[in-house]
Amino acid sequence: MSLKLTILGCHSATPRVNANPTSQFLQIKNHHFLIDCGEGTQVQLRKNKIKFSKINHIFISHLHGDHMFGLIGLISSFRLLNREKELHIYGPKGLKDIITLRLKLSDSWTHYKLIFHELTSNSSELIFESKSVEVYTIPLDHRIYTNGFLFKEKQGERQLDMNAIKNEPEIDICDYQNLKNGKDFIKEDGSVILNTSVTKDPKPIISYAYCSDTKYTESIIPIIENVDCLYHESTFLKDRTDLAEKTKHATSEQAAMIASKAKVKQLLLGHYSGRYKSKAPFLEEAKVYFQNSILAEEGQTYEIK
Amino acid sequence: MSLKLTILGCHSATPRVNANPTSQFLQIKNHHFLIDCGEGTQVQLRKNKIKFSKINHIFISHLHGDHMFGLIGLISSFRLLNREKELHIYGPKGLKDIITLRLKLSDSWTHYKLIFHELTSNSSELIFESKSVEVYTIPLDHRIYTNGFLFKEKQGERQLDMNAIKNEPEIDICDYQNLKNGKDFIKEDGSVILNTSVTKDPKPIISYAYCSDTKYTESIIPIIENVDCLYHESTFLKDRTDLAEKTKHATSEQAAMIASKAKVKQLLLGHYSGRYKSKAPFLEEAKVYFQNSILAEEGQTYEIK
Repeated sequence: MSLKLTILGCHSATPRVNANPTSQFLQIKNHHFLIDCGEGTQVQLRKNKIKFSKINHIFISHLHGDHMFGLIGLISSFRLLNREKELHIYGPKGLKDIITLRLKLSDSWTHYKLIFHELTSNSSELIFESKSVEVYTIPLDHRIYTNGFLFKEKQGERQLDMNAIKNEPEIDICDYQNLKNGKDFIKEDGSVILNTSVTKDPKPIISYAYCSDTKYTESIIPIIENVDCLYHESTFLKDRTDLAEKTKHATSEQAAMIASKAKVKQLLLGHYSGRYKSKAPFLEEAKVYFQNSILAEEGQTYEIK
Repeated sequence: MSLKLTILGCHSATPRVNANPTSQFLQIKNHHFLIDCGEGTQVQLRKNKIKFSKINHIFISHLHGDHMFGLIGLISSFRLLNREKELHIYGPKGLKDIITLRLKLSDSWTHYKLIFHELTSNSSELIFESKSVEVYTIPLDHRIYTNGFLFKEKQGERQLDMNAIKNEPEIDICDYQNLKNGKDFIKEDGSVILNTSVTKDPKPIISYAYCSDTKYTESIIPIIENVDCLYHESTFLKDRTDLAEKTKHATSEQAAMIASKAKVKQLLLGHYSGRYKSKAPFLEEAKVYFQNSILAEEGQTYEIK
């Protein structure tokens, strides 16, 4: 299995020509999640040929504009496109007030159901769960209340070892689900076929952690440990560690330190400040601490295996 | 003299690739006005190389998203760019609540002074006045409270007729301002030189009327009569006059009828619905009723003489 992550925007602060504020589109199992929604996100969705109707869940990290000024526009466009499916929005307390005040004053209530899941906890919590996927918050340390999000597949069923099963004539196709659930098989003579002798471990689960915006904080390590891919903001290079500290952002070096300490498989850098002309130094600085670092680029889709 | 109008966006409803919602940048005398501010306006300003610092007055017609979802982002970017000059925003009551709630919840108050001029009147009123320019509201008929805006130069001083003056030796350079102000000249012997014999009429003033969004309404004619340029929304072609009626928009035919009845010099069509692949029919339909019609195109600057 794999996750697919499309970067719609990976720049900080003000939108510029060819530099969009944060938004990501994540495909995990049969779910499609939008993560943050800076101004211009709906045009980025169109440019990347992502159907609006796929989006049923939007996760907003915090209420700074470069992470959510595009949300009201997207909600309104859903309305104009005659959306009927309900839309779930997860984000800090206050988000509902912001959106509903606008809808009220423009007399543009949605015909579809808009369901806000407002977040206030400072501990990691499960905020979305389906048969196959879970989403947890990752409390971050930024200037205002901010959460990252951990997306992970649920542990699947055990896998049948068909070679072993065909040597056990008493096992019928009707027994497969019990075996997948981990149960042993009891033969007619009362003897036991151990589950592990006819099944294999479930497929490994895949996980993705989104951490933006945040200063360097090791408190997130227990939550993101061993994820397959970590997106960690790297607003600055190490030359402006002072500014990162002051604005509660991180440098690419710090992002790589977190990646290394959390033993993640891959680090995706982003949320670049507009002050830097080239992104190459972000990668160079990160690789010193964490070799498997890559740069987020707008319009790129990353397959996480 | 002339006005310069740059079209930043002239499409209705949802932003699309190469189809931006409404925003215009107007240069009149020494003023620079932003009219409406749909999502993506700040990127359009950058694309058109318009300096953010020129903008001190923003006029918002109504609270539908395609006319103002970009405003909060622009206000925030001004802040990030360390703006110090005050910013005046003219728009319907409620606009201040929308903006200030966002600034409060993101803990991002502007360091510069943000001055809201909230509009509630259903009659045309003077909302901006400087030495050289006036701006009046044009009450429109749309689904929610909406104003167009009439921008006009103030009548200038009378122009000295230097050929006539040189034949009047008693008129000194110190008397010129009185003549420009329209006063007659009293000679030492008590006889009068009529002002009109030594001055010419002031230069003609130039005016621009912005009318979007609105249904066909003749109530605006007395306000926009004889303007040099009328931007009138033409969301639909005449094939969807029914839809224009229902949504309180206008067709290009109706825009042209208004232009004709108001005896304006030029009609600029815009606010096109995304349902039409080509803009050419908008022009064709308008020209039947008003020959001097032109199409608004994004990124184009129109000189109004």
